[in-house]
Amino acid sequence: MSVRFELFHADGGTRARRGRLHTAHGTVETPFFMPVGTQATVKAVGQDDLRSLGAEIVLGNTYHLMLRPGEELIAELGGLHRFMAWDRAILTDSGGFQVYSLAQNRKITEEGASFQSHLDGSRWLLTPERSVAIQERLGADILMAFDECPPSKADRGYLEQSLARTTRWLRRCAAAWTRGAGALFGIVQGGLDLGLRRRHVDEVCAVELPGYALGGYSVGESPEEMHASVAEVAPLLPADRPRYLMGVGTPVDLVTAIEAGIDMFDCVLPTRCARNGLLFTTEGRLNLRNATHARDPRPPDPACACYTCRTHSRAYLRHLFAADELLALRLATLHNLHHYLELMRGARAAIEADRYGAFAAEVRRRESGRAPA
Amino acid sequence: MSVRFELFHADGGTRARRGRLHTAHGTVETPFFMPVGTQATVKAVGQDDLRSLGAEIVLGNTYHLMLRPGEELIAELGGLHRFMAWDRAILTDSGGFQVYSLAQNRKITEEGASFQSHLDGSRWLLTPERSVAIQERLGADILMAFDECPPSKADRGYLEQSLARTTRWLRRCAAAWTRGAGALFGIVQGGLDLGLRRRHVDEVCAVELPGYALGGYSVGESPEEMHASVAEVAPLLPADRPRYLMGVGTPVDLVTAIEAGIDMFDCVLPTRCARNGLLFTTEGRLNLRNATHARDPRPPDPACACYTCRTHSRAYLRHLFAADELLALRLATLHNLHHYLELMRGARAAIEADRYGAFAAEVRRRESGRAPA
Repeated sequence: MSVRFELFHADGGTRARRGRLHTAHGTVETPFFMPVGTQATVKAVGQDDLRSLGAEIVLGNTYHLMLRPGEELIAELGGLHRFMAWDRAILTDSGGFQVYSLAQNRKITEEGASFQSHLDGSRWLLTPERSVAIQERLGADILMAFDECPPSKADRGYLEQSLARTTRWLRRCAAAWTRGAGALFGIVQGGLDLGLRRRHVDEVCAVELPGYALGGYSVGESPEEMHASVAEVAPLLPADRPRYLMGVGTPVDLVTAIEAGIDMFDCVLPTRCARNGLLFTTEGRLNLRNATHARDPRPPDPACACYTCRTHSRAYLRHLFAADELLALRLATLHNLHHYLELMRGARAAIEADRYGAFAAEVRRRESGRAPA
Repeated sequence: MSVRFELFHADGGTRARRGRLHTAHGTVETPFFMPVGTQATVKAVGQDDLRSLGAEIVLGNTYHLMLRPGEELIAELGGLHRFMAWDRAILTDSGGFQVYSLAQNRKITEEGASFQSHLDGSRWLLTPERSVAIQERLGADILMAFDECPPSKADRGYLEQSLARTTRWLRRCAAAWTRGAGALFGIVQGGLDLGLRRRHVDEVCAVELPGYALGGYSVGESPEEMHASVAEVAPLLPADRPRYLMGVGTPVDLVTAIEAGIDMFDCVLPTRCARNGLLFTTEGRLNLRNATHARDPRPPDPACACYTCRTHSRAYLRHLFAADELLALRLATLHNLHHYLELMRGARAAIEADRYGAFAAEVRRRESGRAPA
């Protein structure tokens, strides 16, 4: 198998698991969070920064990369790892989610999804076979099956049709997959309907794959609805395969999903919030644009060991945001990514020590403890 | 004296000099180039980057800092070094040049320059005394006298009046200067008129100061006119004091001015060009936005040892610029600053080896050898 998943400890009090995912580009400790590198770069930071932060894997977006610069060009230059000079692991998504969220005039048929590029209006067709081929050409360590993420308000009739098609697309992905260096993961959809989720878990997991993901969460439902659903569905996924909750979420979402047995996450939240001046700290959230920080000599998070907190004051960061200086974006992104990666390090240590429940409770407490200042 | 200038070698064949400027924040090897950190940050790079690049001094802009966040706030937070977390040397300009180039409704009287902020239209008055006080509150290692940089097309009558006033302002600056940790430098103006330049050198250097600068160059004249004028004027400045050519310039400008005996430079050119995708290389200039680089696996400058050239291809950098990714700006800025600082390292080594003339000729050759690609 193209990746090897090694589970070596189960938390004593919860479903949280501690493991390692061995890939052709290094070992990734689980549970983990993947910074999102949409266009072959994690916005506002360098690969040197990602390495310093201890990131072991990043995510690339197939939709963006196929449109620009194109997977042919990336393959010609040696693949995505070499193109972006990142020698650790890379997971690529299938392109499906961006087709639904960014592309124009999309049309879904049994064959796949046709759409117009949001960049130049050019017409494209993405099929299960094509998505797998692109991800393999990019050289991803983990590739995701091409699925449909149906609208959160879709009626049950559409949802059932969509799930059945996603299952057929999954079988086509599995058939197209060369079983090379990259590992194909299947995706379970089904919205908040537990019956549909259960049925789709059965269909998706009937296809033997190196890992499985939950898609279609964090698309408009409340955190409580998502947490309740993930708590029911995650344990149904094969225990010996990594479980990936796609596109989620806040620190509370992450620690709660780990409690349900999830091993992998990605989300734009820490990087996007950083660029807006919003920092995640061990004391809650901090809005660096707020004038209350103008003369504050304290680091953003006195308990944080990131470069930004070791080096700079809230006053300086607030000045950089007020003056629209580029350095603000890198410093805030460095901090938020450190916060997320440190949260995962804390989660892993807590699982090993069989005190994961207390750890998750503490994260929930600190996140609810303080409104943005 | 607040800084100590140590000259230890003169090039055998030119007027180029090799020295050291000892400041309260470390020693700066001369000749040197100062990255411009207008708003308490060198645009697109961090202080960690500047340190890695080997920068020993940066420039801060008094005009920008007095308007935002204000020198009171910076002083309250421990001064500019501490505010921006930069423990090496800092030179601040007087604010005069930005009053003429950025501010609105400016009016120059004997007292000083009144103007409206380009940020919010608020009314300000900058006088020689106030400029010196602000720079001392910022904690600059080198502060510049408040002068007028007259329009390049000013008639001789205005020019003579302006120079006489700048001399009177210089005396007021010298009287206001506390002779604390910061060293006050005088500024010689006079446009391209050699007679006026000579007279102003006499007036300015009659005020005993730790260093002297040439202002009013690179404001519209041709490079040849500037080079010819600097070659005449630089040698008139006291030989035992550092000589600073303000706001200049291209690599050819720098090596040519060093040949005339200049020790210090600052310019936004490398950082501004970088943000536009234009790189300075040992083979000439390179426009990273150009489509010819789309599939080019070579580093921007194969002879360069900077992080960007050691890590990334032209193809990747071109992609980052095409995709408007923030990382493009940092990587290009890192390269251009490295190129400038390396140029200065080369100049210093060449002076020590008494082969400065050949070094300068080689830089001129390579800069003329290739149009932007």
